[in-house]
Amino acid sequence: MRLTTLCYLERDGAYLMLHRVRKKVDPNKGKWIGVGGGLEPDETPEECAVREVREETGYTMLSWRCRGLVTFVSDLWETEYMHLFTCDRFTGEEHPCDEGELAWVPKEKVPELPSWEGDRIFLRLIQLDRPYFSLKLVYQGDALREAALDGVPLSLADYAGNGGEPDGSAG
Amino acid sequence: MRLTTLCYLERDGAYLMLHRVRKKVDPNKGKWIGVGGGLEPDETPEECAVREVREETGYTMLSWRCRGLVTFVSDLWETEYMHLFTCDRFTGEEHPCDEGELAWVPKEKVPELPSWEGDRIFLRLIQLDRPYFSLKLVYQGDALREAALDGVPLSLADYAGNGGEPDGSAG
Repeated sequence: MRLTTLCYLERDGAYLMLHRVRKKVDPNKGKWIGVGGGLEPDETPEECAVREVREETGYTMLSWRCRGLVTFVSDLWETEYMHLFTCDRFTGEEHPCDEGELAWVPKEKVPELPSWEGDRIFLRLIQLDRPYFSLKLVYQGDALREAALDGVPLSLADYAGNGGEPDGSAG
Repeated sequence: MRLTTLCYLERDGAYLMLHRVRKKVDPNKGKWIGVGGGLEPDETPEECAVREVREETGYTMLSWRCRGLVTFVSDLWETEYMHLFTCDRFTGEEHPCDEGELAWVPKEKVPELPSWEGDRIFLRLIQLDRPYFSLKLVYQGDALREAALDGVPLSLADYAGNGGEPDGSAG
């Protein structure tokens, strides 16, 4: 299993996104994701997020919120436990990232970028300001097969890129 | 590293505690702790908590809150990431636990039971109803050497078993 972090830095209604185009071997190749990476020995999730954001962007996080945990189960990759953060206060000068191209993308445009299907679910949960959540996403290759929120199965039909509600109340 | 869960079942102002006296080899031997255990492959923390509570107590959790993550760093054990739950709605019949003796203990008495030093810190954070937190506890053997809450070092002097405030504002 892998323990990782993902962080969305926020400024002026935009998230700092990373277009993963630089690494030759990259499960995220070509996709747009937030900034993050794997926990080093003895790191807490927030220590990892602060370090990864600094390494990949040049920014130092000053305050953040842990929004949830995403458990990725896949037929191709080992199970990943991803701690999800948002950060709206940071300092420093942005520098290029060696894992991809950084770009500030208006929040409402982020779900339209090429990414993992399940990312739209947790982006929506963040947008709804849902309290700390646990989201399970089960993939076959690039296809999302199952999802569960705090132990309750979600209908994937509610997530066809529209504004469906992740609590199942959508229409 | 290990991923684990710990759950405090609540009823009538008491927590269901486990006195770990049954297993021959047990890092928790002789201590009183909540109910829980290690994540099985592909489990989310809440799936693990529900399973462990059912196996160890006979109760089925109906609703719960994930209160925080505790990162244990030790010179003796591998790093452990423990997802901390409380549960005040459950059903079923209590049965004996093969890992120790179960007992309902009034919440205010729980910090007085023989346990890990750091447990008092997260019990206090739960009592204060602090939103989701990340607590790092660094042990040498049984002695707590460092603690940090959401990335900020804590003064251990504030935790000598009194009612110190975990945010450092104590007196």
